[in-house]
Amino acid sequence: MSLPRLRRRELPDATIARLPQYIRCLSQLENAGLRTVHSADLAAHVGVSGAVVRRDLSYVGSYGTRGVGYPVSELRDSVNRALGLATEHRMVIVGVGHMGRAIAGYTGFAERGLRVVGLFDIDPELIGSKAGNPGSEVLEIMPLADLAAFVHTNDVAIAVVATPASAAQSVADLLVDAGITSILNLSAVHLSVPDTVVVRPVDLATEIQILAVHAAARGRR
Amino acid sequence: MSLPRLRRRELPDATIARLPQYIRCLSQLENAGLRTVHSADLAAHVGVSGAVVRRDLSYVGSYGTRGVGYPVSELRDSVNRALGLATEHRMVIVGVGHMGRAIAGYTGFAERGLRVVGLFDIDPELIGSKAGNPGSEVLEIMPLADLAAFVHTNDVAIAVVATPASAAQSVADLLVDAGITSILNLSAVHLSVPDTVVVRPVDLATEIQILAVHAAARGRR
Repeated sequence: MSLPRLRRRELPDATIARLPQYIRCLSQLENAGLRTVHSADLAAHVGVSGAVVRRDLSYVGSYGTRGVGYPVSELRDSVNRALGLATEHRMVIVGVGHMGRAIAGYTGFAERGLRVVGLFDIDPELIGSKAGNPGSEVLEIMPLADLAAFVHTNDVAIAVVATPASAAQSVADLLVDAGITSILNLSAVHLSVPDTVVVRPVDLATEIQILAVHAAARGRR
Repeated sequence: MSLPRLRRRELPDATIARLPQYIRCLSQLENAGLRTVHSADLAAHVGVSGAVVRRDLSYVGSYGTRGVGYPVSELRDSVNRALGLATEHRMVIVGVGHMGRAIAGYTGFAERGLRVVGLFDIDPELIGSKAGNPGSEVLEIMPLADLAAFVHTNDVAIAVVATPASAAQSVADLLVDAGITSILNLSAVHLSVPDTVVVRPVDLATEIQILAVHAAARGRR
């Protein structure tokens, strides 16, 4: 039992990022009645090479057969297991401005085993109003004072920080005190947290700046 | 003149991501009257090691003096030059839902030499209404049919795709035809573009999924 565990723990981030795309493709193929698929077909769907697909799938313990390909439904099960989709990963969003609402309204979380269960803000005018995706789940915005109890009661491990930069660190402190161990940080400031907490920063302005610097470099060539 | 060019072109993405944080810190130090700064102080501000700071700054051609540190204002000028902040990088946002509005309303673009100059959507109810940051710039949302002429007239090189997944590829095709060469893709689908166009994908659901998979792995340990 230790080998699959080890494998799962070592999934590279880039592989994790592509696995849901394989699942989506495999579900379509299954619905269309196909039983096997070649790595080249998955590769075309995801926009990577066949070699990348084969390496990704080797991480989830699937190797395919030369000339035949991969069995569609078994492969989908393997990818599901690797992503832990049997478990529901519950998350809260703190900061319900445009960015928080964009995430709250995202319709693709369920297929990834993710679920937004709570929305929090400090603005009294927002508290009690609703946000989310009308197609699936609409949630009432709660005050930050309720965060710790909510996280504890609802077994939440993941939080999205979508506050202005000025509020982000104090929100992170609250989240850590509440027992959150994984934070997606959209606030564009560095968050100081204990070593036991994982922060994944996404700074859209920086992403655009990287594009701009490369564009300028291309222009100079 | 070829050496600085070469250096600038080779800036790693992670370095580009940190440079604006150095600029912010250096501006604060300059306002406080400080003339020199140690890499350790910059490191504490940005949340990396002193070695990382020294390597980042070596890319912009600054090496500091042992025991003395870096001259604050010269260093700021070097970082500004490396980021090409003398030039304004103009961008358009296509898709003015919550995500598009979150980006249109971001207040930190100017300090990065970036500027949102146009907002586009396909929804007739949105066209003609306004979005953006009331503190700096509010823009009227334009129809997609105006995109190509606008990009040409306003010398725009960068676009943000913040549309639903179903519209993203056709929007990307429009952008490429209009002459856009850099795309930030927030749509969660792979975009097919010619080799001359750079696409930088940011998929927030995938970022959360990576957190969830790592959290599950930690839980199994």
